[in-house]
Amino acid sequence: MAGGRPRESRVDHALTAATRELLAETGYAKLTVDAVAARAGVGKAAIYRRFATKQELVFSAVVHGVSVEVPPDAGSLEADLLAVLRDIVTSLSGPALTAIPGLLADVSVDPGRFEEIFIAGEQACLRAVLGRAVSRGELPEVPDVDVVHALLLGPVFVWLFLLRREEPPVELWASFVASSLRLPGNSGPSVGSA
Amino acid sequence: MAGGRPRESRVDHALTAATRELLAETGYAKLTVDAVAARAGVGKAAIYRRFATKQELVFSAVVHGVSVEVPPDAGSLEADLLAVLRDIVTSLSGPALTAIPGLLADVSVDPGRFEEIFIAGEQACLRAVLGRAVSRGELPEVPDVDVVHALLLGPVFVWLFLLRREEPPVELWASFVASSLRLPGNSGPSVGSA
Repeated sequence: MAGGRPRESRVDHALTAATRELLAETGYAKLTVDAVAARAGVGKAAIYRRFATKQELVFSAVVHGVSVEVPPDAGSLEADLLAVLRDIVTSLSGPALTAIPGLLADVSVDPGRFEEIFIAGEQACLRAVLGRAVSRGELPEVPDVDVVHALLLGPVFVWLFLLRREEPPVELWASFVASSLRLPGNSGPSVGSA
Repeated sequence: MAGGRPRESRVDHALTAATRELLAETGYAKLTVDAVAARAGVGKAAIYRRFATKQELVFSAVVHGVSVEVPPDAGSLEADLLAVLRDIVTSLSGPALTAIPGLLADVSVDPGRFEEIFIAGEQACLRAVLGRAVSRGELPEVPDVDVVHALLLGPVFVWLFLLRREEPPVELWASFVASSLRLPGNSGPSVGSA
């Protein structure tokens, strides 16, 4: 997020590393901002300049930051959606897998800037991918991004966190979502925002 | 679940009512099994005969019990899926809406019998609905039930709990899932269990 001064970046890396270490050692519930500050060797003020809450700090360290990388153009809507789904699976695996449920419980009580920064970043990525499909002529317009977000993230979420299964069938789901979005008149409860 | 002795049933109702009252008063995080026992006027042993954990007790009181009612035959796969989606939305609204995130965080730490009783109940309902579609000739075989479960529950979940929006577009999603499942060769990473 803006900045880029070397010292800032060193603090960012130290915070991410400290958060991941402490998650592995104590789990999400017992992790504290104080412990992250101590482990990273930075003041708490440096953390709170970046993150309003523990849940923001952890989300940023294990899932993604405020910007979400748009996968390179894979040539078709279905292939692009598959790339997005693979990125979602990767970002929810590893240390995120055990942290996410507790983190979301905290977000539900204190959402803070969760929507503005993290969800907005994911949806900016989706908008870019959907915009490419419009450019290719695969979709008549950019569908409701909330709908696409729910269709892509939702099944992965249930698969990993409720059914507790491994390896979500992302190829199948990419084909489902791509063909669903291409159904005439089915590009969502038209919002038309792009 | 089995039983049906009047006294059992009175205890069940008292537990459900007490749990819902306490959820409304204190929220999920502060609710305790002790408080539910006291409010319901039953011993803790009566609770632990029924539920291994607080999360089981609360899930049963606000989402659904071990059996999930199969909606009446609506005449087509799409209409049946829409009925299931509406039941999912109803069961995740109301008191469940604020309880679920904390509850799932507890389940992730101590899953207990969550999968065996609650997920199994949901999937038995799905199997019945998918079996009807096979009988009608709409599907060649019952698709992987985990996949259908993820496709139906996932988007509702993200819509309500992550995007925090109201009124999920269930008509659209029922049509998406029905048409996806009907795509040739796309009935899931064939498990063929029925």
